[in-house]
Amino acid sequence: MILGQTPQANERFGIVIHGGANSRRPGDLTAEQEEAYRGALREALSQAYDILSGGGSSLDAVEAAIRVMEDSPLFNAGKGAAFTHDGTNELDASIMDGHTWGAGAVTGVKHVKNPISLARLVMEKSPHVLMAGDGAFAFALEQGVEYVSQDYFYTDRRWNQLMRRQELGAVYGTSIPNEYRERRRDDPDDGEYGTVGAAALDKAGNLAAGTSTGGRVDKQHGRIGDSPIIGAGTYANNATCAASTTGLGENHLRLLTTKEISVLMEYRGLSVQEATDLALKTRLREIEPTATGGVIAIDGEGNIATSFTTEGMSRGHVREDGEIVVELFR
Amino acid sequence: MILGQTPQANERFGIVIHGGANSRRPGDLTAEQEEAYRGALREALSQAYDILSGGGSSLDAVEAAIRVMEDSPLFNAGKGAAFTHDGTNELDASIMDGHTWGAGAVTGVKHVKNPISLARLVMEKSPHVLMAGDGAFAFALEQGVEYVSQDYFYTDRRWNQLMRRQELGAVYGTSIPNEYRERRRDDPDDGEYGTVGAAALDKAGNLAAGTSTGGRVDKQHGRIGDSPIIGAGTYANNATCAASTTGLGENHLRLLTTKEISVLMEYRGLSVQEATDLALKTRLREIEPTATGGVIAIDGEGNIATSFTTEGMSRGHVREDGEIVVELFR
Repeated sequence: MILGQTPQANERFGIVIHGGANSRRPGDLTAEQEEAYRGALREALSQAYDILSGGGSSLDAVEAAIRVMEDSPLFNAGKGAAFTHDGTNELDASIMDGHTWGAGAVTGVKHVKNPISLARLVMEKSPHVLMAGDGAFAFALEQGVEYVSQDYFYTDRRWNQLMRRQELGAVYGTSIPNEYRERRRDDPDDGEYGTVGAAALDKAGNLAAGTSTGGRVDKQHGRIGDSPIIGAGTYANNATCAASTTGLGENHLRLLTTKEISVLMEYRGLSVQEATDLALKTRLREIEPTATGGVIAIDGEGNIATSFTTEGMSRGHVREDGEIVVELFR
Repeated sequence: MILGQTPQANERFGIVIHGGANSRRPGDLTAEQEEAYRGALREALSQAYDILSGGGSSLDAVEAAIRVMEDSPLFNAGKGAAFTHDGTNELDASIMDGHTWGAGAVTGVKHVKNPISLARLVMEKSPHVLMAGDGAFAFALEQGVEYVSQDYFYTDRRWNQLMRRQELGAVYGTSIPNEYRERRRDDPDDGEYGTVGAAALDKAGNLAAGTSTGGRVDKQHGRIGDSPIIGAGTYANNATCAASTTGLGENHLRLLTTKEISVLMEYRGLSVQEATDLALKTRLREIEPTATGGVIAIDGEGNIATSFTTEGMSRGHVREDGEIVVELFR
């Protein structure tokens, strides 16, 4: 296979993760809540660091970090996923290998504990890139992944978000005013966002990225956002960067935000931070002036970029020095 | 809404269409078969020409041309779609407006006569970009689109292709040798390809593109290819071009072929033909050395590009002079 770039073995490595863009400001969370989020992000980074520092692959690190966030009820992915309009949980995930340009993704899976691991199996064990619904679940059973009942994903908090959203929907239909959508002091992560993602560089010089989500609260049955779409939610190319998005998926689907970041580096020579900022703060708003969201990215030198136009974004990173950095607010 | 480029009213307009890449060589078709394909392509172009020459929109022209091909049993889209592994027909389509960057797409729809028209309704009448399966069908019923039973899509030819493929699959599993996949003298359009698409420029200077498919013959339940993915199967941006792909979808999903063509024009200054050739003949093969397929594109000046790496591709175009050009072979 011809590669975007032959990787160079080096001692640089790192991973950047996000637990979703949101509308949180400092003071919105209690001290305990804040520590819970920080602790979960640190745990994800710590597991990824152990893999990368031991010479493991960026794909393994991305998968491990996302599994920690999927298993935590705090994030809108795996356990704790947002509910659809019909009161079900339908999960999406995608992963991409920047070395081979292999990619795998699943959408609308209801019974798989860790959708990111199923996405990786689609990449590695099927001839396909994207699989949906029952067909994806049939493949999951063949592959022996851990499956769960819908009850597993239930949390009171997400259920209450659905009830609130449906009360607003009964009044406003699909035109719920932005002040209700974007900012609730009592629950600033109200299910609009909350996708999780990771992007990593390993010692062999290979990049990888992944994204996992429960989707928007109250989403219509069958709606697919950007998280399972290669080039929208997730992209990785050893010649440029690995990246993952969060935010309103429809805008990322139209721009192809992570592919845009990659080509801004490749064809316009921008740095990973310049490309990330230009894609999120300029190009995405050309498509939709009110677009908000966030992106994380890492390049082949281990340079890390984060960019968001929401109030907050849960995020963190660690590099070869082992210092784990976690941030929640602007 | 901020636009990629303010359109300039002018007298230039045009449309380019494809009825799928395939492995046909001159002489593979009888004179009657050849005339049937040419006639269907001419009818699609003729309807689109009437719309464009009358000052209609590129979106209307794209939708009309694709509906003609969906309604013909000759192409792998709408009536005459390829069968899935389970013997069902599951249809995908997408459409994009280069003026607003609005986009709509559907995947896995089983009961909608013209998926391209449903994709347009997703773009214009829903807050979503991509809708799947039963959820897409529920939306179709709300919108009052024409629905049909699965029997509508049946053709003997596609059923026989499925039977042949399953016989080969019983012998070779998923590793059917390429000589069986790519070339059958007795049926050179053997269901690997056959997607239809269109890309148009209207007198107002607006570009639009669309794609519709039955997917690969014998596809696994739940597999999604590139046709319903914006940036992979379909892309349109007034600042660059409108484009539609055909060929093995997994490769287009990893490259984001139509988005790649658009950014090669935008960030590297290539012409639409240069960008189309570079994307299909170089970049796609970097991702997968054996990748084959085809692309059609049109730019804001009305320049038309076609490129394919298969033996044949059904295609045609018409511009403001009204001369309808149709080709089937290399």
